[in-house]
Amino acid sequence: MSKSRNEVINNILSNILVNHTEEELQITTYNKGQLIVNESDPMHIMYFVISGKLKVYKEYENGKTMLLGFEDGFNILGDVEYYSKRDTTCTVEVIKEVELIKVDFNIINERYSDSKQFNDYIIKQLSEKLIDSQLNTRINLVYKLETRLASYFYSLYDEETKTTIEIDSLADISNNLGCSYRHLVRSIKSLIELKVIRKEKHIITILDFKKLKELSRGNVYENTSNKEEN
Amino acid sequence: MSKSRNEVINNILSNILVNHTEEELQITTYNKGQLIVNESDPMHIMYFVISGKLKVYKEYENGKTMLLGFEDGFNILGDVEYYSKRDTTCTVEVIKEVELIKVDFNIINERYSDSKQFNDYIIKQLSEKLIDSQLNTRINLVYKLETRLASYFYSLYDEETKTTIEIDSLADISNNLGCSYRHLVRSIKSLIELKVIRKEKHIITILDFKKLKELSRGNVYENTSNKEEN
Repeated sequence: MSKSRNEVINNILSNILVNHTEEELQITTYNKGQLIVNESDPMHIMYFVISGKLKVYKEYENGKTMLLGFEDGFNILGDVEYYSKRDTTCTVEVIKEVELIKVDFNIINERYSDSKQFNDYIIKQLSEKLIDSQLNTRINLVYKLETRLASYFYSLYDEETKTTIEIDSLADISNNLGCSYRHLVRSIKSLIELKVIRKEKHIITILDFKKLKELSRGNVYENTSNKEEN
Repeated sequence: MSKSRNEVINNILSNILVNHTEEELQITTYNKGQLIVNESDPMHIMYFVISGKLKVYKEYENGKTMLLGFEDGFNILGDVEYYSKRDTTCTVEVIKEVELIKVDFNIINERYSDSKQFNDYIIKQLSEKLIDSQLNTRINLVYKLETRLASYFYSLYDEETKTTIEIDSLADISNNLGCSYRHLVRSIKSLIELKVIRKEKHIITILDFKKLKELSRGNVYENTSNKEEN
């Protein structure tokens, strides 16, 4: 069950940012298409995501990208980079308007490095991310392309507004999903034949969301496990 | 640079298990082939590995296994399960004799849940594991099978004793490396033609370790990043 916006804010302020000041309460909004984290930039802020949807991917020198997953709702970004002191290894792009609270690494240093509550929360969160990451490793091996493709559309679809999905080039999607171009084209055709989607150039219309959800087997790209527990 | 056995023990006792008793100092040895962690068993012990080599993999219902990686030297097992309170998602098998210190979750609860030093160490370790896990996700995509196969043999080879490697069935290896049986057979043939290995039934002899190391591109299955920092 996903929590309401207020419940998430309340959770962040009373369980994580326990030593917060008014200044930190500022909520920043990022719009669709904006990058919150860019692989090439140094990381010096921890982000506490309240709402919205994110796409996490890795870029290669040759311009190819690989999908690492989608994140919906509450999430923490920059924790791994803060504690490991290593550079970020992925790019985080907004898929659906995101609200978040930013906290500079200096403030974390000063006010949270000794906070048991903060550290306990982060450590639990990191453990869950690690399990999710290990599960992700297996997505390409365990799930058929049809399931991954249905999950991909499922993640990009906005159930509330029911708008169409604008997709990247098929070459980009095949990189993202780790399949051949030909295999991708076949799978899209199969979804069209099943009347689950309609495709006009770069626009995908979801015709049968129930069936899409079924085919996505609960969406293999979004791990709801930790959301249920928070 | 890998640390000496004494340095690792000293690191564990003075930086992690800071509230240790004599009882905890007991070092347990596991032999080649033994399972330290079994996917199907509940986890209630944290393991502080001092030396040896481990193979981490995931088993499927159909008997197939997928390689998640090899771990050499110092490592912590059970931390993710302790903090996330979730079941373990992989099996850990000894490849080369392992020495470790076991600490029951109850003792961690009693004596370490309030230890800043313990928690700081674990949190840094988890962050590094998470980065490594994300890098692992990409191994099959980024590296050619030849590189993965060379890394696989590299991990199983014991430089000191220079003994031959007893391998599983080729079907098992192809599952492990996420490739087809045919592709694996071709790659093994190519290593034989390059005079890097010799194969007699299930026995692999390393003929040219320098070349194997080169082909493995520094071994894509073992992340040395955090070892260097510890």
